[in-house]
Amino acid sequence: MEQGFTSIGLVGAGLIGGSIAARAARTLPGAELRVFDASAGNAAYVAERHPNARVVASLGDLAGCDAIFVATPVSAIPGQVVELLGLPGSEAVVIDTGSSKAAIAEAVGAAGADAGRFVPGHPLAGGVSTGPGHSSPDIVIARPFVLTPGPKTDPAAVARARALIEALGARVVEMEPQAHDRLLAIGSHVPHLIAFALAGLAEPETQELLPTSFRGIAGFAASDPKMWADIFRDNRGQLAEALDLLKNRLDSLAAMAEEPSPERLLDALAEARAKWLALEDDT
Amino acid sequence: MEQGFTSIGLVGAGLIGGSIAARAARTLPGAELRVFDASAGNAAYVAERHPNARVVASLGDLAGCDAIFVATPVSAIPGQVVELLGLPGSEAVVIDTGSSKAAIAEAVGAAGADAGRFVPGHPLAGGVSTGPGHSSPDIVIARPFVLTPGPKTDPAAVARARALIEALGARVVEMEPQAHDRLLAIGSHVPHLIAFALAGLAEPETQELLPTSFRGIAGFAASDPKMWADIFRDNRGQLAEALDLLKNRLDSLAAMAEEPSPERLLDALAEARAKWLALEDDT
Repeated sequence: MEQGFTSIGLVGAGLIGGSIAARAARTLPGAELRVFDASAGNAAYVAERHPNARVVASLGDLAGCDAIFVATPVSAIPGQVVELLGLPGSEAVVIDTGSSKAAIAEAVGAAGADAGRFVPGHPLAGGVSTGPGHSSPDIVIARPFVLTPGPKTDPAAVARARALIEALGARVVEMEPQAHDRLLAIGSHVPHLIAFALAGLAEPETQELLPTSFRGIAGFAASDPKMWADIFRDNRGQLAEALDLLKNRLDSLAAMAEEPSPERLLDALAEARAKWLALEDDT
Repeated sequence: MEQGFTSIGLVGAGLIGGSIAARAARTLPGAELRVFDASAGNAAYVAERHPNARVVASLGDLAGCDAIFVATPVSAIPGQVVELLGLPGSEAVVIDTGSSKAAIAEAVGAAGADAGRFVPGHPLAGGVSTGPGHSSPDIVIARPFVLTPGPKTDPAAVARARALIEALGARVVEMEPQAHDRLLAIGSHVPHLIAFALAGLAEPETQELLPTSFRGIAGFAASDPKMWADIFRDNRGQLAEALDLLKNRLDSLAAMAEEPSPERLLDALAEARAKWLALEDDT
């Protein structure tokens, strides 16, 4: 079989799980895919995306897989990872896809699991829409797939995870869990917190008057509240720090708007704009 | 001539001015359009959008117009409005398009101008891109054109302004200046302040990892720093109040993420999402 993967497990048949399945169908068509989801409908929907897939009824049915992706909400991931690591006879590499990494690794470690085969991961993918109906073979390869191995992670497991993810067509980036969580706090968690905060301030009677910028930002509040409550809670420490950074900067800009001269404000805005344009140019 | 407008003046040949000119070309092709801009290139570009337009060299050349739009940066508007109101023999209705209304009206009043013919306005239009090259006949009619007449405004001038704007195809909404400024503070000025603040926090080495939500929000920082420095300064009072509202809400959500139970956070996120979806449904 390609890359030595004959049987792949998938826990969680949502947007990310469905996209991994669709990707595997394209790049690893000879590998078997076993799909588990608490929703039988989601599992069946995703299994249809892979010619060699079948729905299974329990995590125990994933024993014998070479690798297992866990693409469930972050609050569910640690318990499922621990159960998968403990399956008798299993040698599967277990890769999760959650948006907070330190808390998940800590919870798995605290459960006393032998975490050598657990490779914490996060495909930087997804958007406002959730569920397998929005999945696509392009979503998990459009941006890097981050892996955050810790001190307990077996380097051989990392190598296996990397080989599988690269076989799917994604680019792997390895980071420290804390560096990932800090980056995601400022890059995704604070932006979503802003969206929910701004949406909460909308007054229905003014809806026809709300400008493009409000809509562009508050629109991220269409995201799944359960998923985001889990993420905000899991990464609350880094979230609070990133939020302080943002608030300090907002206060600083607002204070500059009170100054007699426009110079400092203009410079700060021009510098922020230049930073943004440099990011865009390099992408 | 249509709606009784035989000659229309335009001060400022940027995105909004260019879009007004393009719109006038479509709906008032028989009216003369006189275009003034400090940039001769911009003025010429916009004049080309109207079959009956010509570039003029000074504000004084707009004497004799029935109505004049002032679509320049908010820091330039009051001085130009005062000069236009003082043109000998002019009976033109003067309509500005700035994003802050109370400060502009106050500055015009403080200059001792006879402000009866000045109708403060704001087409809720525009985006990140500026300049006449991005103008379009659709931009100024896609969303309401707000008018904020004050106690000094002649009701007949408001009626004339309304007739002209409706002849262009836009829908007029009248509001109190303070209500407009409060709405724009939360709906546009704070969102742009967030974008500049977030963009300023980006670290170049992480650019390939920055998620969609960061890019969607910080992308508004591609806007013109000079234009936004002016707006933030003009509306600094309402901006500070709206920013406090937002920060309180961000703090409140972040504090909920620290609570032992996820319930209150989940409820708050679900409520914000519902508010957003209700806005979208009605649009």
